[in-house]
Amino acid sequence: MRTLNVALGERSYCVDIGPGLLGQTDLIVSVLPAPRVMIVTNTVVAPLYLSKLTEPLRAVGVHVGEIVLSDGEVYKNWQTLNTIYDGLLAEHCDRATTLIALGGGVVGDLAGFAAATYQRGIHFIQVPTTLLAQVDSSVGGKTGINHVRGKNMIGAFWQPRRVLADTDTLNTLPVRELSAGLAEVIKYGLIRDLPFLEWLEANIDRLMARDSEALAYAVERSCANKAEVVADDEREAAKEGGRALLNLGHTFGHAIEAGLGYGEWLHGEAVGAGTVMAAELSRRLGWLTADDVERTRRLLQRAGLPVSGPKLGAERYLEYMGHDKKTIGGRLRLVLLKRLGEAVTHAADDEAMIRAAIESCCA
Amino acid sequence: MRTLNVALGERSYCVDIGPGLLGQTDLIVSVLPAPRVMIVTNTVVAPLYLSKLTEPLRAVGVHVGEIVLSDGEVYKNWQTLNTIYDGLLAEHCDRATTLIALGGGVVGDLAGFAAATYQRGIHFIQVPTTLLAQVDSSVGGKTGINHVRGKNMIGAFWQPRRVLADTDTLNTLPVRELSAGLAEVIKYGLIRDLPFLEWLEANIDRLMARDSEALAYAVERSCANKAEVVADDEREAAKEGGRALLNLGHTFGHAIEAGLGYGEWLHGEAVGAGTVMAAELSRRLGWLTADDVERTRRLLQRAGLPVSGPKLGAERYLEYMGHDKKTIGGRLRLVLLKRLGEAVTHAADDEAMIRAAIESCCA
Repeated sequence: MRTLNVALGERSYCVDIGPGLLGQTDLIVSVLPAPRVMIVTNTVVAPLYLSKLTEPLRAVGVHVGEIVLSDGEVYKNWQTLNTIYDGLLAEHCDRATTLIALGGGVVGDLAGFAAATYQRGIHFIQVPTTLLAQVDSSVGGKTGINHVRGKNMIGAFWQPRRVLADTDTLNTLPVRELSAGLAEVIKYGLIRDLPFLEWLEANIDRLMARDSEALAYAVERSCANKAEVVADDEREAAKEGGRALLNLGHTFGHAIEAGLGYGEWLHGEAVGAGTVMAAELSRRLGWLTADDVERTRRLLQRAGLPVSGPKLGAERYLEYMGHDKKTIGGRLRLVLLKRLGEAVTHAADDEAMIRAAIESCCA
Repeated sequence: MRTLNVALGERSYCVDIGPGLLGQTDLIVSVLPAPRVMIVTNTVVAPLYLSKLTEPLRAVGVHVGEIVLSDGEVYKNWQTLNTIYDGLLAEHCDRATTLIALGGGVVGDLAGFAAATYQRGIHFIQVPTTLLAQVDSSVGGKTGINHVRGKNMIGAFWQPRRVLADTDTLNTLPVRELSAGLAEVIKYGLIRDLPFLEWLEANIDRLMARDSEALAYAVERSCANKAEVVADDEREAAKEGGRALLNLGHTFGHAIEAGLGYGEWLHGEAVGAGTVMAAELSRRLGWLTADDVERTRRLLQRAGLPVSGPKLGAERYLEYMGHDKKTIGGRLRLVLLKRLGEAVTHAADDEAMIRAAIESCCA
């Protein structure tokens, strides 16, 4: 097991990474204010891993409740959130109850937002079971739900007390979701860690083959990068750079997800294609070379990701991008690449250039 | 104008109290990250005060949007919250937008929770127009909505950037709401400020007659007490005392509100009767004298408040009290009075005594 620290003062916490963590109850029990937890999971994860978590906890005297949600991004909404509230209230859960999210990003975002808002905030532990959740959404405290007018429009920053990334759970992950997680892994290399990007170029086939050593290293290196960024800019308040840089490819990606309807593409798939668009726009701004863009595209492609976006038309892309949260004072800000391994936030005012970059990356 | 500071480190803010503050745009403009605000108010307050706030702001170039909600505690729910989200999204509000709550406690709680959760948190200003909101709910950052299973069950701690308590707005307040506000004013005297309690006994008739000097003093002294308590225990995390002490009478009061159905009694009315119950239980524990209880009852009565609860039966009271947030690890904790001017949190295990205290205060 490897352990990282997310340094956020009194909100600091550990991220533990390795095999067999689900059964290590001491990691969970040591951060509980009272021996009472409510586990939120979904219908896909529950038969695979729920008992692996609940049985050892009950064996040491923890009172364990369970809330099993439907699976999928389409359920990341108010109705599902309300089923969590109902479950907590039905069991008379008070402020000393700890909520545990067992699942992927959707479960973590929903359960985290429920924890942030139930009785004005209760403790919360992330047990991510997808690569995307392990390397990205479980660390950093972003929680929330979708609104019909936009993704993650309603939410809160709410840090977990601990993150347990059990790499054994990646063995049952569908290949499409493995690829989606790799989009975020590759992102860390592109935005701030050139040596890691080069390691990924050398090891992407091992990752696709689920070599456990390689996966553990990729998760650890990703979380270490994320922890550093989050520690510097917890609430994404930095005017330049900071946490916003983690959104490389995401503004384009959100347009893809929203334009096709949530759930059509996986989030990571949309980020994959969106990252190519960001790289292409960076090239048109004179920052990346054509070879840099090609390296980016090839790595994403080898990770099994789409490297071109759906033909929605540039206008619809721009419309959805304008609704994204990453605008300040009405001005569209994009995360782009100054070079491989270094991202910047950029106030994008050349709409014609953005349009052209999008069009050249759609097929 | 008098100005108090709520000392919460980087979340510190000013509470300004006095007449004519609605038109003092500099107080608002100085805390805006961008010249763009969305005002949330209701159908009762809008015709009285909305233009007094919007016109001066527009005159200095601030972009002002308006969201007018239905009036009443029954609307403090998810549907109304969603109309705020819809309004924010329809106007393409981004993270630099500041939300302003113009109204009473319900508007403040709803708008505050919307601010806490829209795009994971935007800036927020409280402009309370009821006595209850000026002395209590607008200061301290508690926001939230009701759930069918309990009051304020869903919410967040989210501090405003400023509070403007314009005492002119109290002139149009219905007398029932004036009394409801006085329940919280009297509370500060009872829990931690004996000299203020004695001042209230001497000046309650002036307050009921809306003497503007007396009202301004009562608002200031109440906010000063609240600011001190909140600064010491922002998130109500103290194991003993702390912010929980502000809930004197509230656990009994919540049982009255929930038992009769929200909206039947005003919150402050329920707190009035609940405070008598808390005083009576304190007497049975040997802490208050019969004379102390009588002083408490008489002051609340002179403030126009109910001093006995509805006959729901002690069992139903206890049932609703157990659902209140102020339980820890399943154990009922009540705020009681050691003496007039000093409250304590108390783990109440003598159910028979609680039952008897409730029964003796119902009529």
